[in-house]
Parts: sequence; structure tokens; C-alpha cells
Amino acid sequence: MTAPLLADEPLGVINVGVEAFAQSVRDTGGMAVHVDWRPVGDGDPSLAWALAELVSDAEDSDAAGARIDRANAAAVSRITSAQPILVDVALHAREVWPDLGRTLLHAGAPVAFDAMCGPMQGAMIGALLYERWAATPDAALQMLRAGAIRIAQCHDSGAVGPMAGIISPSMPLFVVKNATHGNVAYSNMSEGIGRVLRFGANGPDVIERLRWIETTLAPTLKAALAATGGIDLKAIQAQALLMGDEVHSRNASATLQFLAAVAVALADCDVDRQATRESLRFIAGNSQFFLNLSMVSSKAIMDAAHGIEASSVVTAIARNGVTTAIRVSGLGQQWFEAPSDMPVGLFFPGFRQEDANPDLGDSAICETAGFGGSSLAASPALVQLVGGTVSEAIAYSRQMHDITVARNPGLSLPALDFAGAPCGIDIRKVVDTGIRPVLTTGIAHRQAGVGQIGAGIVRAPMTCFTQAVMALAAALGAVESERC
Amino acid sequence: MTAPLLADEPLGVINVGVEAFAQSVRDTGGMAVHVDWRPVGDGDPSLAWALAELVSDAEDSDAAGARIDRANAAAVSRITSAQPILVDVALHAREVWPDLGRTLLHAGAPVAFDAMCGPMQGAMIGALLYERWAATPDAALQMLRAGAIRIAQCHDSGAVGPMAGIISPSMPLFVVKNATHGNVAYSNMSEGIGRVLRFGANGPDVIERLRWIETTLAPTLKAALAATGGIDLKAIQAQALLMGDEVHSRNASATLQFLAAVAVALADCDVDRQATRESLRFIAGNSQFFLNLSMVSSKAIMDAAHGIEASSVVTAIARNGVTTAIRVSGLGQQWFEAPSDMPVGLFFPGFRQEDANPDLGDSAICETAGFGGSSLAASPALVQLVGGTVSEAIAYSRQMHDITVARNPGLSLPALDFAGAPCGIDIRKVVDTGIRPVLTTGIAHRQAGVGQIGAGIVRAPMTCFTQAVMALAAALGAVESERC
Repeated sequence: MTAPLLADEPLGVINVGVEAFAQSVRDTGGMAVHVDWRPVGDGDPSLAWALAELVSDAEDSDAAGARIDRANAAAVSRITSAQPILVDVALHAREVWPDLGRTLLHAGAPVAFDAMCGPMQGAMIGALLYERWAATPDAALQMLRAGAIRIAQCHDSGAVGPMAGIISPSMPLFVVKNATHGNVAYSNMSEGIGRVLRFGANGPDVIERLRWIETTLAPTLKAALAATGGIDLKAIQAQALLMGDEVHSRNASATLQFLAAVAVALADCDVDRQATRESLRFIAGNSQFFLNLSMVSSKAIMDAAHGIEASSVVTAIARNGVTTAIRVSGLGQQWFEAPSDMPVGLFFPGFRQEDANPDLGDSAICETAGFGGSSLAASPALVQLVGGTVSEAIAYSRQMHDITVARNPGLSLPALDFAGAPCGIDIRKVVDTGIRPVLTTGIAHRQAGVGQIGAGIVRAPMTCFTQAVMALAAALGAVESERC
Repeated sequence: MTAPLLADEPLGVINVGVEAFAQSVRDTGGMAVHVDWRPVGDGDPSLAWALAELVSDAEDSDAAGARIDRANAAAVSRITSAQPILVDVALHAREVWPDLGRTLLHAGAPVAFDAMCGPMQGAMIGALLYERWAATPDAALQMLRAGAIRIAQCHDSGAVGPMAGIISPSMPLFVVKNATHGNVAYSNMSEGIGRVLRFGANGPDVIERLRWIETTLAPTLKAALAATGGIDLKAIQAQALLMGDEVHSRNASATLQFLAAVAVALADCDVDRQATRESLRFIAGNSQFFLNLSMVSSKAIMDAAHGIEASSVVTAIARNGVTTAIRVSGLGQQWFEAPSDMPVGLFFPGFRQEDANPDLGDSAICETAGFGGSSLAASPALVQLVGGTVSEAIAYSRQMHDITVARNPGLSLPALDFAGAPCGIDIRKVVDTGIRPVLTTGIAHRQAGVGQIGAGIVRAPMTCFTQAVMALAAALGAVESERC
């Protein structure tokens, strides 16, 4: 009975899901409009079930969804009310953590030395040379392979480090206090660009610069900070969003703001003139100097939002060069890990995509706090570094809004008519929409010792979020209770 | 015979020109689409005739239009190749101009003291107190009214000054050399915001700050400059366009860049520590400090493009608070003047549009060089200060492109996918399109002594451009030759 209908009129089809069906209609002379839709959870029924249970049910305030919504509102409130203040420089990490001994901290989730990517291994070797625990790279490698050095991650010490993210006991640290909530966070200091430890370089020039940071830059900045009474990092970040930075891969104006504060403070200090001169020159010559400060500011913000029962807000994204891992406010210290994606972007002359290491570093903490990919609309100039177009940069910020709980009214994005930066990545929304968080990132060479070879864009793996959704459903008893 | 047509069908009209005709069609039940068009020259036949003669005729390389196009290409080449370098600070204007005597320079075209606007009269009175030529404001006023003080304009001395633009013999000057073309330009120094001479304030605090600029800031910056070997102002301006400034009404990042250069240089100098401290604090506390430097940079750029025979490029726009005046490259030192418009924008609490003085200051030199209104697309954050929306800011830059000769490849506008800033305002295009140049501006209170009351947007009067078109036609013999 349906044959006459198909025969009499041209076939018009709206196709949902698998695109090949639309093409087959077109191939036989029909018209087909394709709707790009996938079942939630990519067809995994248990995931779809878990997600359904975690979505808000306005009519039942005891339902998991409503509990999560309330917890997320509390988490976002802690994010937006945070006041990360750079209060001090610790001249050596071992002063902050007296039990450090022969420990190296690294970026991302825990990873054994033999499983590390090339840049992280190279940076660890460099740290042993810097600490004088080994006299040669070969000796350092043997010690690391033999397990003579304790290895831990930055995040569990309340710290963050860009790229390899190595922090060793003699390195100085930025000390940031969240004045609202009282928590403290730490980071190492920027080494500048080019051949640097964080990208896996470990030659004599790299070690010499680390010693200069320890003996000259750190005491100078410590004196400057004492004269200021503390520098409000979120105020600098908010201004920087008005000045073309997304404060992750572009920190040009944030660095200038920090330099201005330090220069004015140093004019009030009795610091050695040569040290002042060298320190100001170093910061002025490195437009990414503020990156580490943006990271530690973000860490101080996000730690305050961690540990809220039932919250599905992502409080850390961290990459060790092998895996990307996330932590979720309501799910304790567990990392949800998946293999890191490859960043896509622009490469320095002589390098190409095949040379790239998978996504690396703790710097994606910036995205969780509303910077980087979340605020790409603020930084059209960044596309000159990472590729793409300005309209794509704006689209990334809109996508991040689709997977976050709120907008931060204290962080305005001019290109979006001063809408607030997307704030509080919600694992439920990531899985529901299929939109993976956008991260801006530097690109390291996959081999130790080469260094940075480009900059680009990468997304966090979906599997991190699907695992976290399943874990949250289990933690809230949402799945079990329904199935019983 | 036409009556049946009108009676049978609904009337559909495309109406060109006077909108009232469209409305009358609509009033009688018809449909009308209105096309907003005006005859070139607003219906003045002699102007339309002159303009027609000045437009390019590709088939006749001797025609006026082709000559102007060639001259304009030369003018734009001089604009884009200019290298304005801040080479020195002159500690007193009288060192630069030994014959200055008791002269005050002011913004805009020549204007007698009695005809000046309130803020400019107030600033002149302040300058007499600062120079100790008078002991009281009343005594100063009498001297000015009696003609005891010579009055001249900044532009004819190769100088520019914001708002009232007063330069007196004891004031220090920025000295900028165009390294490509060898010409030199000057400006006074920023006094900061609030109660300042340039907005007509002249109280003891204003005079005291001027003396501090003379005795402390100027020598400190002179020493810093000597240590740098010169600061490339166009490089700072170009960077600032990537960092949210249009480098006229917003100079936040340009000021930070300048501060960084000065702070690093001062660390190398044996300058008094107290002077260094005060100078760095002063610049750090004044996000518009770079405005005077953007102006003098623009002056050094545009002077190099002046005096090219047959060129219709505007090389200066200057306002004395009564008139707005333009100079044109191919028309010598003549000013083409018309009454200044009222800026429209946002007012500080307690003030309103009725309090505003008409458009004032030499700062519109920035727009002629591609900054300010020309580059508004670069500065979405500025709409928070001057009102309007981000899309309007972008639209202003597109309008400026419609009335300019070229885009400056050295000045990228990120929001326009890195298109160059519009460069070389062409009087022919202004008259032909009816688009008046967009200027960003501060707003002064119309009475002397009050100061700044807001910031906004204003357009240069059309009459400046129609007069200039007539003058250029006459100069080129275009009108006469055709009519003979």
C-alpha cells in the first residue's frame, strides 16, 4: 500500500544518526536532510542510563540530578568568589615540603618513569643534573630507571607545572593563597622559551638558567612581593581577557601587568641592582612568563571548589604526556584517565605533526577555571600562533559554554559582548552533548631534549568523562536504586 | 491610461532619496522599500561637478583622478614605511624652539583667546600660573585678554597636544624622529586623569603636578631613553592593536609596554631612586599615559605624508573646541574648518550631555594614521568606556575602510581576521560616500576648571571635506579646465 506514495512523489527524507542512510536516499534521486545526532553515551546503554539518572529532575528535589545541580551551584560559587593572591616566593620547594627528600614532582596523573613520554624523561634527567644528584645524563637515567628517585605528581602536593611540570627540591615556588577560602597552591617559575626543562631539554644552558632562577630571580621576586603585600592574580587575569590574552597559551598582557607591578615594587626595595636588571629583562623578554602564575591562580581557585559531595564539576584536567586525566569535585582524589590526544596547530619551521608528543602538562587547570579554551573568544591574536580563524576561536568559547554550569561574571569576554567566561565544566554535559573540552597548548617534540616545536589546540578525551559519569552514578547510588 | 494599473494591483514602490515619499505610499496602502541615497555633495551641483572631476579616470592618466590616485599611493607608502622612534625628552620646550618667548601653543586650528572654549581658556590661565607669568588666575586672564601672550597652534610647530593641548616654554616634550623620512615631531606629557590642565583645570594641584613632570618625570624618562637608544612607538602601537587598544581612547596595553621598556632601562641607569619610584608609579597608575606618545607617533607618521602634490589624503584632523579642522597632503598648510560636533558617549556620575564641550584636541591625528576610530574593531573593551556595542565598534572600522586609500599591513586588526588598519583618509571618498570619519575622544566640561566628564565617539564635520574637495579641484585646475 505504500508503494504508490514512493512512486508518485519525489522522496524527501530527514535522516537522523548514521549519515550513510541519507546518502543512499540521495543516490537514488531523493532529497535528504541529515541531522548529526548520536545516541547519548555513543550507544552504551549503561552509560546512557547512568547519565539519565544524573540529569536534573525538577519535580524531585531528592533525585540525583537535583542534588548534583545544588552541589554544582555551590562549586561555582566557590570558583567565582575565589581570590587567588600571590603572597610569597618560597626560595626552595623543600621549605614548603620538608619531607620531599629525593622526590621529583611531575605533571598529570601518576606514571612510572619507564612509561613516561620523552620530554618528561628528559626533564627528569635535567632535574637530577640540576640537583647534582647525578653528574651526567647517563648516570641520571640509570638512577631513575633503578628507582633511586621518588616520583610523585604535582597536583597531590597542591602544585602545578607546565608541560613536563617537574618540580625538584631546590626549585623556587610561587606561593598563592586563596584569600576567600584559605587554601594555598604552588607552581614552579617560567624558564622562558626555547630550550627549557619543561619541554624536556636538559643541556648545560638549561641547568644554568634553572640555577639563575633559584639564586637571582626568586629572591628578587620575593623582595618585590614583600613590598607589595601580595598581587591579585585574578584581577590580572580578568584584565588580560580584555587585552587579547586567554591567559593560557597567550599571556602577553598579563605578563606586562605582572612586570609593571614588580617593577614598581622593586623601585621601593633595596635589592641588588644587577639582580633587578636581570630579573626585569628576563620577564620583559618572555611574554609567557605569566603562564605559571595563571596556572597556580587557577589551581588555587579550583581546589576551593573540590570535594563538594555530589558535584559533577571538573576541578582539574592534567596530562602527563601519555594520558589525560580529570578530577571531579564530588569524586575525591581519583583520576579518570584516557590516552592523550595529539594537539593540532602550527609548527615551528622544520617540525611537523609526526614530531609531536601527545598532549602534556598541568596547564589545562586554566580551562577548568574559565581561561584558555574556555576564553578563546578573548584572544583572537592567539590564532596567529595556534592556527584557525577568529570565528573558530569565538565558536570554541561558545562550545565551552554548552558544557559548563555558569558564566563567571568577573571574567568578561569582550567579543561575546562581555558575557562571562564559561565556568565549571560539568561531566554530565560533556557526555550528553559529545562536546569535549577545548584546551590551548604548547606542543613538545616527542623526543627528550628537543623542546617546543609548536602550539595548538587539543580536546580532552571523552573516556575521562564517561568513566567519571559512571563513577558519579555509582557514588550516588543512582543506577543501583533504579535497577533494584 | 495608467489608472487601471494602479487600481488593479497593490502599489509596490522602490523609493530613492527623500524618505517622506515612501511613507506617503505606505499611508495609502501601498508597499514601499526605501533606499537611503543622497545626491553626491548633498545636492550642491558645483561640489558634485568638482568631485566627479577628481575621481579616477583609468583611461586618461593625465586626468585629475589618476594624478590624485598616484599621489595618494605615494602618501600611503610614506605612511606605511614610517618608523616613529621616541629618541629623546627635551627638558623644556624652549630648548626645541628658542624663539618661543611668551608663547602658548594650543590644539586645533588658530583661534583668538576670546573665541576659545572654556577648557582651553582655563588651560591657558593655568599655563600662565605654571610659567609664573601671572600670580593669580585673574591676573592671567587679564594678560591673555590684553594680548600680552602670543598664541599659536601646536601643529605648525610640528607638535600635538591632547584636549586643550597647551604647550608652554617650560614644559618638557617627547621628541620623536621618523627614522625613515627624517622628520621630527613633539608632544607634551600625560598628566594623568582627573583634574588636569588639558581639560581646563588650573588649581594648585594641577600646577604642582606640572612642575613634578618638569623636574622629576622628564629627567627620569630622558635618562631611560638614553639607556635604550630609542623606543619604537609604531611597534608598540601595532602590538597594542592585538591587545585590546585602539591607541587613542584606550592605551592600557600600550602604556604597559612603554612602562616595561622604561622600567628595564631604568634598572640600567644611575637615576635617583625616589625619582624612579615616583615615575614608574605615575605611569603604572595612568592607563592613558601612552596617548600623548600615540599622538606624537601619529604626527611623525603623517607629517611624512604631507605636501605631496595632488594628494587628497588627510594628514591632520585637529579640534580647538570650537572648530574641527583638517589638513590635506596636497593642499599645503591651509586648514579646512567647520564647527565641532558634540561627542556622544558615556558620562561620569553627575554629568550629562548638556555639560559637554564640543569636540576638542589634536588627538584625532591618531585616526589619520589608522588608530582610534579607524581601529575601533581592535578595542571591544573600549565600548565599556564610550558606550555602544562591540558590533558597532567593528562596524566603525569597516566604515573607515570605505573612506580610506588602503589598509596598513603593519597594523593588524584581529577581529577583522587581521586585516590592516584603514590608512589614508581620502577627502573624495568622504564626500562621495557621505561617511564622516569616526573619532574616539574624551569629553571635557564646557566650563573652565571642571575637567573630564566622560568619553565617547564623534565624527568630523562634512563641511571640512567639501571645502577641501573644492580647493583641490581648484588647485588642480580640474573644474576650470572642464568648464572652459
